[in-house]
Amino acid sequence: MIIPFEFASIPRIIFGAGKLSELYELIPEFGNNVLIVTGGTSLEKSGNWDIISSNLTQKGFDFSHAFITEEPSPNRIDEIAAKYRTMNIDVIVGIGGGSVTDAGKAISAMIPYQDSIVNYLEGVGTKKPDGKKVPYIAIPTTSGTGSEATKNAVISKVGEDGFKKSLRHDNYIPNIAIVDPELMLTCPPSITGACGMDAFTQLLEAYVSAKGNPMTNALAYSGLKYMKDNIVPACTSGSDDIGVRTAMAYGSLMSGITLANAGLGIVHGLASPIGGYFEIPHGVVCGTLLAEATKMNILKLKEKGIEGRPALMKHSEIGALMAGEEDFKKGELYKYLDLLIETLEKWTNNLEIEKLSAYGIAEDDFDKIIEKASLKNNPVHLSSDDIRKILKNRL
Amino acid sequence: MIIPFEFASIPRIIFGAGKLSELYELIPEFGNNVLIVTGGTSLEKSGNWDIISSNLTQKGFDFSHAFITEEPSPNRIDEIAAKYRTMNIDVIVGIGGGSVTDAGKAISAMIPYQDSIVNYLEGVGTKKPDGKKVPYIAIPTTSGTGSEATKNAVISKVGEDGFKKSLRHDNYIPNIAIVDPELMLTCPPSITGACGMDAFTQLLEAYVSAKGNPMTNALAYSGLKYMKDNIVPACTSGSDDIGVRTAMAYGSLMSGITLANAGLGIVHGLASPIGGYFEIPHGVVCGTLLAEATKMNILKLKEKGIEGRPALMKHSEIGALMAGEEDFKKGELYKYLDLLIETLEKWTNNLEIEKLSAYGIAEDDFDKIIEKASLKNNPVHLSSDDIRKILKNRL
Repeated sequence: MIIPFEFASIPRIIFGAGKLSELYELIPEFGNNVLIVTGGTSLEKSGNWDIISSNLTQKGFDFSHAFITEEPSPNRIDEIAAKYRTMNIDVIVGIGGGSVTDAGKAISAMIPYQDSIVNYLEGVGTKKPDGKKVPYIAIPTTSGTGSEATKNAVISKVGEDGFKKSLRHDNYIPNIAIVDPELMLTCPPSITGACGMDAFTQLLEAYVSAKGNPMTNALAYSGLKYMKDNIVPACTSGSDDIGVRTAMAYGSLMSGITLANAGLGIVHGLASPIGGYFEIPHGVVCGTLLAEATKMNILKLKEKGIEGRPALMKHSEIGALMAGEEDFKKGELYKYLDLLIETLEKWTNNLEIEKLSAYGIAEDDFDKIIEKASLKNNPVHLSSDDIRKILKNRL
Repeated sequence: MIIPFEFASIPRIIFGAGKLSELYELIPEFGNNVLIVTGGTSLEKSGNWDIISSNLTQKGFDFSHAFITEEPSPNRIDEIAAKYRTMNIDVIVGIGGGSVTDAGKAISAMIPYQDSIVNYLEGVGTKKPDGKKVPYIAIPTTSGTGSEATKNAVISKVGEDGFKKSLRHDNYIPNIAIVDPELMLTCPPSITGACGMDAFTQLLEAYVSAKGNPMTNALAYSGLKYMKDNIVPACTSGSDDIGVRTAMAYGSLMSGITLANAGLGIVHGLASPIGGYFEIPHGVVCGTLLAEATKMNILKLKEKGIEGRPALMKHSEIGALMAGEEDFKKGELYKYLDLLIETLEKWTNNLEIEKLSAYGIAEDDFDKIIEKASLKNNPVHLSSDDIRKILKNRL
């Protein structure tokens, strides 16, 4: 029996190699006055910024350009929103990694308010956003956060009073997502690997989420199917193969759609406090914890006996997918569970995902991390000790 | 390699038994002045109209009520749009079968124009709609057309100059779809069967469509998976089983989402002229032709050799799904193709889907039907003779 569920709208999706060229036909649907948000230098280095800016100029758009050079902080969002608030921006276009596409989303949401974003962040501020925004087109250049399809923007403040919290509203789902894998060809191996593990984590956590539904299951499975054979090649021999990059981009897009509707698990429940306390890329946190967290979830689900069976079966389906779908046999549940863990461990090694200590995290920090960790929609309850073990194994 | 694709937005979906009760919290998001569009008498007979109208009154909404008692004609849409054009309607709610949910969609689209809908229908008028509309909430009471998730409304004129044509724009996708299977419990077996076959046809045609993409594949497969074991029970012993009705409602919703993005095949390419010339329910046309059309498609794909292989494989996957997924073996392609055809033929018989002649269609009518038939995104080319054979076998 299908349990009642809600599924938020999704952006209009324009997907495929070369599709960036449609941006210039899409902008006029909203107007002529455009704010472009990009990252530091990688778009320029790749030569893509020259193409974009000369096209915008040639087509006669009136455009401004704001930069996001690190994970977006409340101050930076407030600063940009204040600068453009009175400039009658018709549409915002965010082109970059997850920090940039999230920042574009946050700016589009904050322009209508005479207020700081801090007041609207979940678990930080006291106000609820009402969904008003400037129309927003998201164009990812990494296959990672899936931010082009989510309803939240993650805002970070680093330090002792640090946090990593979301500005969230159904209406913040971008109006349009242009997902062009050509933009990802120049993404270096370390970023490709970390982002890929983030997307894969989101897909797996959405697939086994306690809040999943048949639609999120179907789309998460589809994303995992395309991503599984491409995540290692994307960081190695296949990094300039557009087919590999396309599969990764698709998986990342599905991860955004499914996390927005099924929620996530303990890996993302830990990524939030760890990313708040330490300067560690979000993709690295996910990548480094995924295998260990999956192992712990499976262990705890096994201990629950018959009650844990449905969630174990879902983990097992993904283990079977790793082995090649046609081999799936329901009787071999445990074999596939082992296979899932083995594959994730192999990826962690092959992609050389760094451990937590490389970013200055020590065992003494575990208490404060665990205190702020959330189980989110993890398929099974984990105790503080269980969570501590996950962290310790990746120190 | 994933071929470039576009995927239109989808409605915000609120799915599950009892979810109609959320309507009264959703209406205020748009305003207080509501136009309710319903069918003739079935909503009243089921007792649901009493509940809905007393709730609307209690909550203090200002509501009007328009009726659609047959498949929506241009005249009827023009008449209702004209009546409510000056009444500052904030939101339209269409509650009923496909005719009603399509009519509500068309009215929401035509209220902003001082013009007849005929001028905007594909293949009939010369004007293109620009997507302006009154916000629209669709609430299906049958598991059939998936209209609650599509961007088009089918408008019919019956007779010698008859047609069945669409008003279409991406923005006509309903703002919200409330899919509550409790509303479907009273749907009689003949309508449940015909609508179910329509939805199943849409899912199968979308799955094997030449225009399909990984997202439509994942969602169509998911819809077929839930529908396959429930279509016969929904018309027989399981008609009052909410689990059965829920699975059918889910399949129907997926059929709307996937047809909107992957297009359809020859069955729907024939349903349009047949429905234009003759008074035959759309679900009956689909149901009566599906098995024969699938048989012909498979025959023609086999004749194409290696070139037909990918589409044959997709048909085969659905054949395997019918047999229980865990049995799928790639070597048994032909066995699954036969199984698919056999299952569809069995359903056609078990559901007692009528033949074309029961609606006054004769062999003499085939020429004019074939002349106006479209292959749409059928996975293989069919000649006029091929199409004639499909029709003849269901005369």
